Amino acid sequence: MGTSKRPEAEVWRPTAGEVAALLDGRLRDASPSDGPFDGIRVLAEAGARQLSFVVGDKELGAARASAAGLLIVPSGELSAAFAGRARLEVDEVWPAVVELIERFHPEPDEQPGRHPTAIVGRGARLGEAVSIGPYAIVGDGAVIGDGTVVGPHCVIDGRSRIGERCRLHAGVVLRGLVEIGHDCLIFPGAVLGADGFRFERVGGATLKIPQVGRIVVEDEVEIGANTTVDRAFLSETRIGRGTKIDNQVQIAHNVSIGPHCFIAAQVGIAGSTRIGAGCLIGGHAGFRDKIEIGPGTRIGGMTGIHKSFPEGGVELWGYPATPLKRFARIQAVLQRLPELERRVRALEKGLAE
Amino acid sequence: MGTSKRPEAEVWRPTAGEVAALLDGRLRDASPSDGPFDGIRVLAEAGARQLSFVVGDKELGAARASAAGLLIVPSGELSAAFAGRARLEVDEVWPAVVELIERFHPEPDEQPGRHPTAIVGRGARLGEAVSIGPYAIVGDGAVIGDGTVVGPHCVIDGRSRIGERCRLHAGVVLRGLVEIGHDCLIFPGAVLGADGFRFERVGGATLKIPQVGRIVVEDEVEIGANTTVDRAFLSETRIGRGTKIDNQVQIAHNVSIGPHCFIAAQVGIAGSTRIGAGCLIGGHAGFRDKIEIGPGTRIGGMTGIHKSFPEGGVELWGYPATPLKRFARIQAVLQRLPELERRVRALEKGLAE
Amino acid sequence: MGTSKRPEAEVWRPTAGEVAALLDGRLRDASPSDGPFDGIRVLAEAGARQLSFVVGDKELGAARASAAGLLIVPSGELSAAFAGRARLEVDEVWPAVVELIERFHPEPDEQPGRHPTAIVGRGARLGEAVSIGPYAIVGDGAVIGDGTVVGPHCVIDGRSRIGERCRLHAGVVLRGLVEIGHDCLIFPGAVLGADGFRFERVGGATLKIPQVGRIVVEDEVEIGANTTVDRAFLSETRIGRGTKIDNQVQIAHNVSIGPHCFIAAQVGIAGSTRIGAGCLIGGHAGFRDKIEIGPGTRIGGMTGIHKSFPEGGVELWGYPATPLKRFARIQAVLQRLPELERRVRALEKGLAE
Repeated sequence: MGTSKRPEAEVWRPTAGEVAALLDGRLRDASPSDGPFDGIRVLAEAGARQLSFVVGDKELGAARASAAGLLIVPSGELSAAFAGRARLEVDEVWPAVVELIERFHPEPDEQPGRHPTAIVGRGARLGEAVSIGPYAIVGDGAVIGDGTVVGPHCVIDGRSRIGERCRLHAGVVLRGLVEIGHDCLIFPGAVLGADGFRFERVGGATLKIPQVGRIVVEDEVEIGANTTVDRAFLSETRIGRGTKIDNQVQIAHNVSIGPHCFIAAQVGIAGSTRIGAGCLIGGHAGFRDKIEIGPGTRIGGMTGIHKSFPEGGVELWGYPATPLKRFARIQAVLQRLPELERRVRALEKGLAE
Repeated sequence: MGTSKRPEAEVWRPTAGEVAALLDGRLRDASPSDGPFDGIRVLAEAGARQLSFVVGDKELGAARASAAGLLIVPSGELSAAFAGRARLEVDEVWPAVVELIERFHPEPDEQPGRHPTAIVGRGARLGEAVSIGPYAIVGDGAVIGDGTVVGPHCVIDGRSRIGERCRLHAGVVLRGLVEIGHDCLIFPGAVLGADGFRFERVGGATLKIPQVGRIVVEDEVEIGANTTVDRAFLSETRIGRGTKIDNQVQIAHNVSIGPHCFIAAQVGIAGSTRIGAGCLIGGHAGFRDKIEIGPGTRIGGMTGIHKSFPEGGVELWGYPATPLKRFARIQAVLQRLPELERRVRALEKGLAE
Repeated sequence: MGTSKRPEAEVWRPTAGEVAALLDGRLRDASPSDGPFDGIRVLAEAGARQLSFVVGDKELGAARASAAGLLIVPSGELSAAFAGRARLEVDEVWPAVVELIERFHPEPDEQPGRHPTAIVGRGARLGEAVSIGPYAIVGDGAVIGDGTVVGPHCVIDGRSRIGERCRLHAGVVLRGLVEIGHDCLIFPGAVLGADGFRFERVGGATLKIPQVGRIVVEDEVEIGANTTVDRAFLSETRIGRGTKIDNQVQIAHNVSIGPHCFIAAQVGIAGSTRIGAGCLIGGHAGFRDKIEIGPGTRIGGMTGIHKSFPEGGVELWGYPATPLKRFARIQAVLQRLPELERRVRALEKGLAE
């Protein structure tokens, strides 16, 4: 990262026609020679020389007010709503936007290879086109798959196995037996493998229970900056395929998270709790230990989950966690609680009379 | 830091007169030859050879009980309350205390310069008297202003611009386009530039939305240890001038924080939320995404802010966030909720009879 | 860590008799020649070639269903409940389990010594058999006791004093005057010594109050990954003997934590708060500043403690923190709050008629 070559002054300034060709889209009320455009911006910030995009109905007002030179729009009704305005119809807007961003903002090139200051232990097996950054440490016997980038100052335990095309940013620590799948992304300061927090009191003294299990991170997982995932007691801590975890999340020992979950920042999940596939978890939510959350559960920010909700598919809010509808009703009455008390007082008075 | 010279045994042992001269204060019921004093302590811990200080009325009792040899007091009524006691009147107590602390506790000297193990990329522009610590990495093309200290193990992206007289402590990571103003202080483990957490589901698959925007940190900002500030989607994440951020705070992509805010530890601010100038935010508070908080808002610890409060100047508490007065009334009734229910039962019985 | 030798292929495959001899236990309904066993697992995951263990009555069902080849059980009634089943009676199960785990899962050997890339300042005093990892930095004058391991990329301020047999994992930062006792364990990314968060407004400007006090960590303390402990204002921040702190905990300046506390992940303790001996604190709990919590207090997850509870021995839950019994009663009525309001409406109607 730090020592990578900066991108050559390759500056992309496409015409409307070139954008259309790239995205396989259809220009409406626009000429292929329109442009050139020098970037893509959100609606409110785009000017005549910039592209912008509309994803849904809710943005109709903002899109009409936008000065963007060319709008990327989904084909169909939403496009029709812009009749007369220069626009490019595509089948799916988000993949088009991603492609444009990547063209306008190429990441700096990195040369694969092992920086001379990287320390790679005996018996470590590095695949093709692996990059090991400055001052990184790879323990004896570690296995790192093709195309994976290990950032500067990372510390990779010799018992780790990392798949292909992963990127570990600066200062990531893997400790103990950590298995990372393919195409994972781990941001700076994440620590996988601190000891699970487990002590027993025996005869008045504190006994530390060793944590010798594995951490398994399946394919296509993203782990945020300064997030911590603890080493398991005897078996494993697991993060399912495609699950995305934001910054400063705490995942305790022996937790199991299903595939395709989204976990926002500062969530904490206590030991041995199991979370099903496809859950959406809002920021700062907390889960007690040894509970089970069914697949497809949605959990509001700052929710405190104190018991199992194994059936799945519900939306939970509050502390203690309550299904949304019920939570909203309770909250509504709570807001008029002082008046409710006053009404009771009036009733008492009325009855006394 | 680690390799800096320790301070010479310069030990400051001032008399009362020397303290008075340094602070431009007036000795009362004390002689210039009193002392020498060997340090400054809080009231409860100061002895006869130590200075202490009184900031306001609330400390009158503690000050009377204190054994401090000399009290720094504000001139006026508070000083008069100590008639007969050795004291030094100053116009403003806190600046005087800061000056004394700095004299009694000089920080170790550091020699500016680039440690031989620091890796500085081609085209990086370092100002005068810049210090780059051991094993730090400064990418190609980075710009670092005069007098700035980059601590050991920092990783500075080549696209970064850091102003003058900043200090980045050990292991700070700047990734992507990060602009830091003058006189900023960033504590160990802070990560500026992890990707904003943004995914879209397209055709049953998860599409990662690239985060290519800037982070802008204005002048005189302080960022705590292990705090994370995310890279913006297309435009910018901004922290206003003079804002102070404690440890383990999470600031998501495209958040904008106004000037002169104070944000306590473990606060989380979700994407695109805007916080006005001069807000005070208690620890562990959480903000949902895309809301607006007006200037001068005070927010209690652990408050969950679920909607905009754009008018500013209010004090918010609880979950969901409620203006203080209302919150206090609701809480008061909540504490007697079991009794309220009992009263309703009694009424029902009474009415039935 | 990264560069350590991997354990020789010493593989322990004990018979029941060897296990009994190691643990000084009594085989029941088992022969000393049973086995060999190749590991220890939790009840649900153990097979015929594995050991498992039963700690209390609650596991009776799981133990009966387990396929484990040999059960470690406490002598007495619980053992009798397994009559006919191969088991090993021991006086205390947990110490036996710890011993077995350590035999089956030996940690990689580490050679003490100073890695050639470690930077150790002039006048640093390292005890016997101290290990300083790659790219670690030990400041001038630091003192490190016998048998202590300083992991890779650690940064140890020259004013630090570390006791014997401690282990600082990768990337730990000690800044300022930090005193660590014996037998402490600090996990990756922990930062001890960021400035306490203290500012005063003087004449419309923000004045930073220097933080020059000490951090004292007593013996046998454990500090989790990415946890932050702040430097004190003038006196000290203290963590008592035997206290265990999980990941991502924030301990502000001048906090004092008594001995033998257990503090779960993501707890935040604000400045100058004092916590007595033997407290148990659940995850995500928050404490305001300058309060006192008595010894033996138990605090539920996500509890917000807004005032002192100096008497100790209570169990607190909720926000604001409420003694458990009262909290449970309030919560129970809260869950039927919509119905309570309806009952009041019915009463009003009844009275009106």
